[in-house]
Amino acid sequence: MLLQDILTFFEQKAPKATAEEWDNVGLLVDCGHTTINTVVVALDATPAALAFAKENGAQLLITHHPVIFSPLAEVTHTHPAAKALQNGISVLSLHTNLDKAAGGVNDTLAEKLGLENVTVAADGMSRIGILPTALSAADFATLCAAKLHTPVSFCGDNTVKTGAVCGGGAGDGVFAFANVADAYVTGEIKHHEWLAANESGLCAVAAGHYATENPVVKTVAAWLTDTDMTVLPFYDTAPYKGV
Amino acid sequence: MLLQDILTFFEQKAPKATAEEWDNVGLLVDCGHTTINTVVVALDATPAALAFAKENGAQLLITHHPVIFSPLAEVTHTHPAAKALQNGISVLSLHTNLDKAAGGVNDTLAEKLGLENVTVAADGMSRIGILPTALSAADFATLCAAKLHTPVSFCGDNTVKTGAVCGGGAGDGVFAFANVADAYVTGEIKHHEWLAANESGLCAVAAGHYATENPVVKTVAAWLTDTDMTVLPFYDTAPYKGV
Amino acid sequence: MLLQDILTFFEQKAPKATAEEWDNVGLLVDCGHTTINTVVVALDATPAALAFAKENGAQLLITHHPVIFSPLAEVTHTHPAAKALQNGISVLSLHTNLDKAAGGVNDTLAEKLGLENVTVAADGMSRIGILPTALSAADFATLCAAKLHTPVSFCGDNTVKTGAVCGGGAGDGVFAFANVADAYVTGEIKHHEWLAANESGLCAVAAGHYATENPVVKTVAAWLTDTDMTVLPFYDTAPYKGV
Amino acid sequence: MLLQDILTFFEQKAPKATAEEWDNVGLLVDCGHTTINTVVVALDATPAALAFAKENGAQLLITHHPVIFSPLAEVTHTHPAAKALQNGISVLSLHTNLDKAAGGVNDTLAEKLGLENVTVAADGMSRIGILPTALSAADFATLCAAKLHTPVSFCGDNTVKTGAVCGGGAGDGVFAFANVADAYVTGEIKHHEWLAANESGLCAVAAGHYATENPVVKTVAAWLTDTDMTVLPFYDTAPYKGV
Amino acid sequence: MLLQDILTFFEQKAPKATAEEWDNVGLLVDCGHTTINTVVVALDATPAALAFAKENGAQLLITHHPVIFSPLAEVTHTHPAAKALQNGISVLSLHTNLDKAAGGVNDTLAEKLGLENVTVAADGMSRIGILPTALSAADFATLCAAKLHTPVSFCGDNTVKTGAVCGGGAGDGVFAFANVADAYVTGEIKHHEWLAANESGLCAVAAGHYATENPVVKTVAAWLTDTDMTVLPFYDTAPYKGV
Amino acid sequence: MLLQDILTFFEQKAPKATAEEWDNVGLLVDCGHTTINTVVVALDATPAALAFAKENGAQLLITHHPVIFSPLAEVTHTHPAAKALQNGISVLSLHTNLDKAAGGVNDTLAEKLGLENVTVAADGMSRIGILPTALSAADFATLCAAKLHTPVSFCGDNTVKTGAVCGGGAGDGVFAFANVADAYVTGEIKHHEWLAANESGLCAVAAGHYATENPVVKTVAAWLTDTDMTVLPFYDTAPYKGV
Repeated sequence: MLLQDILTFFEQKAPKATAEEWDNVGLLVDCGHTTINTVVVALDATPAALAFAKENGAQLLITHHPVIFSPLAEVTHTHPAAKALQNGISVLSLHTNLDKAAGGVNDTLAEKLGLENVTVAADGMSRIGILPTALSAADFATLCAAKLHTPVSFCGDNTVKTGAVCGGGAGDGVFAFANVADAYVTGEIKHHEWLAANESGLCAVAAGHYATENPVVKTVAAWLTDTDMTVLPFYDTAPYKGV
Repeated sequence: MLLQDILTFFEQKAPKATAEEWDNVGLLVDCGHTTINTVVVALDATPAALAFAKENGAQLLITHHPVIFSPLAEVTHTHPAAKALQNGISVLSLHTNLDKAAGGVNDTLAEKLGLENVTVAADGMSRIGILPTALSAADFATLCAAKLHTPVSFCGDNTVKTGAVCGGGAGDGVFAFANVADAYVTGEIKHHEWLAANESGLCAVAAGHYATENPVVKTVAAWLTDTDMTVLPFYDTAPYKGV
Repeated sequence: MLLQDILTFFEQKAPKATAEEWDNVGLLVDCGHTTINTVVVALDATPAALAFAKENGAQLLITHHPVIFSPLAEVTHTHPAAKALQNGISVLSLHTNLDKAAGGVNDTLAEKLGLENVTVAADGMSRIGILPTALSAADFATLCAAKLHTPVSFCGDNTVKTGAVCGGGAGDGVFAFANVADAYVTGEIKHHEWLAANESGLCAVAAGHYATENPVVKTVAAWLTDTDMTVLPFYDTAPYKGV
Repeated sequence: MLLQDILTFFEQKAPKATAEEWDNVGLLVDCGHTTINTVVVALDATPAALAFAKENGAQLLITHHPVIFSPLAEVTHTHPAAKALQNGISVLSLHTNLDKAAGGVNDTLAEKLGLENVTVAADGMSRIGILPTALSAADFATLCAAKLHTPVSFCGDNTVKTGAVCGGGAGDGVFAFANVADAYVTGEIKHHEWLAANESGLCAVAAGHYATENPVVKTVAAWLTDTDMTVLPFYDTAPYKGV
Repeated sequence: MLLQDILTFFEQKAPKATAEEWDNVGLLVDCGHTTINTVVVALDATPAALAFAKENGAQLLITHHPVIFSPLAEVTHTHPAAKALQNGISVLSLHTNLDKAAGGVNDTLAEKLGLENVTVAADGMSRIGILPTALSAADFATLCAAKLHTPVSFCGDNTVKTGAVCGGGAGDGVFAFANVADAYVTGEIKHHEWLAANESGLCAVAAGHYATENPVVKTVAAWLTDTDMTVLPFYDTAPYKGV
Repeated sequence: MLLQDILTFFEQKAPKATAEEWDNVGLLVDCGHTTINTVVVALDATPAALAFAKENGAQLLITHHPVIFSPLAEVTHTHPAAKALQNGISVLSLHTNLDKAAGGVNDTLAEKLGLENVTVAADGMSRIGILPTALSAADFATLCAAKLHTPVSFCGDNTVKTGAVCGGGAGDGVFAFANVADAYVTGEIKHHEWLAANESGLCAVAAGHYATENPVVKTVAAWLTDTDMTVLPFYDTAPYKGV
């Protein structure tokens, strides 16, 4: 598939202009390949993901997190973008534009949790839906843990019928959804956000950055199935363990 | 004890000028009490802490987290500062100045973990010390969990002899301490910070904002023991549970 | 009357969105009262106005000048907002939105001076009208002094037929109205503004901040007459005397 | 006298570097005269002052207020700087550097009011001194009016022994001097500054921008008496009258 | 002709609002002349241009480069604007608005080089056209030198059929036109701009600021021919010579 | 030679901290080589310079102009830094720190022109010296052309005894040196800078960015002669030709 056609495809799925102003998305490493035979999809351009791409002869790595975030005043061989360049792997990063995209990060998360009648929240990024059956806050947290295969932290003792979700480090959503939903699920929640959730009676669930976003790898790989490329999803392990 | 003497005491222990520029510390709610008979010490001005202070007739509440962080363009009765004011409880907040103070948040944390030969790190806030016995990363994480009475998340498989600590949400310390210590313990670590820790081979431990900072409540209460005041430490519960 | 209905009423009369960007208006102190039985209207939340509100059991004080202007990083019991909160008096401030409102500060001022065919000036705040009879600058200044019950300062020796008005500290209007009106009346005029008025031949009149704005107290009180509330205008004295 | 020597003289008396950062002082209009035979000293480069300078064949006009304040993107013949240039009159403006200068605007004002043991206030500009005899606030205001030949406005009913002064539009001094002096005299005081003075019990006196600064004209003229120049002070009239 | 009519004429030809945000255009020196009998048109208000205007009794000088660029905090007799004011010569400057104007600086330049089918480039200022005959880069550079009567510097060895032009110091156009035109002609090109042109294979031509803009003097003078004014173009010499 | 020793050597010769705040200097491309056998020195990382480095098996390229100037939000294979990285060539750029360095860009330029008693100018970067024999401006320009092997542009008809120099695009030096030197030599001079030089009577010489800086390549190569490395200066051609 022509790289240009891949870019055009994603520009329709997750337009660059919909990314947040502070974000950095697009073809962040361009090795000059015009035709892509093998593409790897991963959450991050970790050493493991880059090695997997190299082993499989991929010309392109698609990541959710930008391989370059702060612009580089100097380029060092240990930086993921430099490694990609040296190994001839171009990198396309889809970040907040993929969070917002129809069927993207947050729609995938909502679907994993079994939410129904899912709509886009006022922030344009989060999703809100209805649980088939109302649950206690503790049972809802248990549901999240089971569906996302991860331990979770939670607060609240209310009944959860309406749930809002936003993958990643979006703990400030506890302020936005206190009067809009019964529960709010995200990856990371900070201390003062936990306090605010408690004060407002919202059930908040922190399920981990990795666990809430990694499902989108499968989604993006599926989008590319019917092309002439070999499409390889790479599921990295979570970057931490629990004790 | 005169309020003015209490302020003078803490100005020596944890001078306001040492707080970070973005911080807001000091006597943030001033009800006009000049003499303090009963003082409560807590991590936050939560509803529980304010209720405890009121029940015990305290004129002053000392908190680590600022009762006012963003300046208030309007004052609402549900805000902790308004509640304090309406209940006649002045509030003194010691935040990053207490993090940095000798014997403060981070010295208390280092001591809890059994670090020895503790020194102040280059950032002026974190502390670095030596473990009596070298441990594997997993064993060190287990030690943190035990000493702080909390589940923890960690990464790394190195041997830990030198440990750096900074209570609260200081995950960006993983960049500063990668080549300085074998392990870094803080409250909250974000996704890209976990990735960086993995990449550099640092053992990083996220032990929770609450669990890494709450020990300072006992410390501050102890500082005031030999005064003519009734000094009541208030140990709030963590704002979330695990599943 | 429900507080919410009062807010809705004023949102129609003087919408918050019409206030200047630097201004701070709205329910700046919220004690949580949902029903208001007694309301006091005053120019400022002075000690006298707050005492009057307390004596009369008012749940709400409406002021022209914001009870909080610069956001509060700390709250002290001597601050008017703290006093209001401690005495259970909510405060609604209508400032530049009331200056601009139809029938508000500046329409009231124009009416007091007897201007006719009054229109809104290009700045959206000041008003311009026609005197029934042309007057010398000195006679116009004398008229202002008589109508507003205050000594005034003035410059100019032209004939005044068209007059512009803007209550408060709006002396920079002398630049805007030099070629638009024969006279400009405001509360406070600075030295370089007087020089500019002299240079352009404009009759400028400084009638005092208090004297040019206080008439709106009666106006706002009148707006609320036909409600189920006890409505008490409070006419403070001017904050200075002359020698 | 050589212009360069005049500039050197004033650089010693009132160094440019002592002017406030926002100020614009120095030789703001330079017609190229190297030798000055006749110099006029005035508060402002008003039409009257410029006409007086021209009639007297002056090559230099010294003013307190800057003849150019906001830098000029275009030059129009009606601007005082253009008039000066067209009439061959250079203009030297000494503003906040003269306010602060020993013997300058504020020392002159303090002396006019009979203050003794005068010292420089913490702001580097105002002056603080002692009255020979304590007076009531009203009597102190009457004294100011008599010494400065102007009506004044005032507040307060305390006893005045210590007085602070700052000529011009320095009403924000009411905050700085509330606990430092019994009275504060300046030219212009705004509404919220009057309220603050009332609240703190300070006697504040607004004696007019012109009346508090014009005395310095005589002072500066006197500084130049023993030169080979004809030195002509020009006492403009106040830019407004009272009714 | 009335000055006001001249301003209206140019407001139609080259509206002030079309000038760049950083620019300063319009009647930058206004001596108060309402009727203009003699007008001089020049590239700059150099001493020679001002002397020419004075000798010819002109009341108005029209320049391309602003006689005041950075606003003046002080006015010195050696500044061109001061000289103009002292000699009673008003100055009207048309800068980036004239660059963009139909028939203005860049249309004049395109015409001088013989470009055909000239259109406005995407930047709104440059012009793009077609050469009647394709030329080698070196021959195109030679053509530019001949038509503009100046030595030129150039790079490139491509064939030039489509040419873009922008008079003055617009070397950054080499980035904009690399894939849009075969050649780009401007006045000044900096080192890194030359490198970029070389890298992209663009023929870039630096023909001098003066030589690329001076032709507009004749254009503007021609615009005013059919008025009742004496219209005198002044062709200054280039400000440097070659060795 | 160890890369670290090379960096230490240049940190002494031209410390990074002496570079201008807007500049970007240092090891801008780091391929991870710890030992350098062959180093190339060039003015710019042009395609020719990179090809030369590759052909000669260099591990390091030292350039004057930063290989990365604006930080890179994305890395493309056509960018010089990407080419260097892909070819395993680290790049060390010394820019304004080399301009200022003792014996660096500007000392080299001063020496080429035969200036004597050379001192550092007030700007810390330019150099000022004395010609052995006074020359007319035209003869001085001819001297510059001869010594730097380039055509030059110049203005002025004064006698040149004292000369100031600053390589590169430093035309704004004409303002700084008008009263300090008889002549000022730099690479690029803009139109309004030529006008200023003419007005002040300064002899200004524009000798080209390349011609005024390229001599430093030989200088830097010479600094490294006595090392164990193969040191290869690369003299690029000027990026433009004259017609």
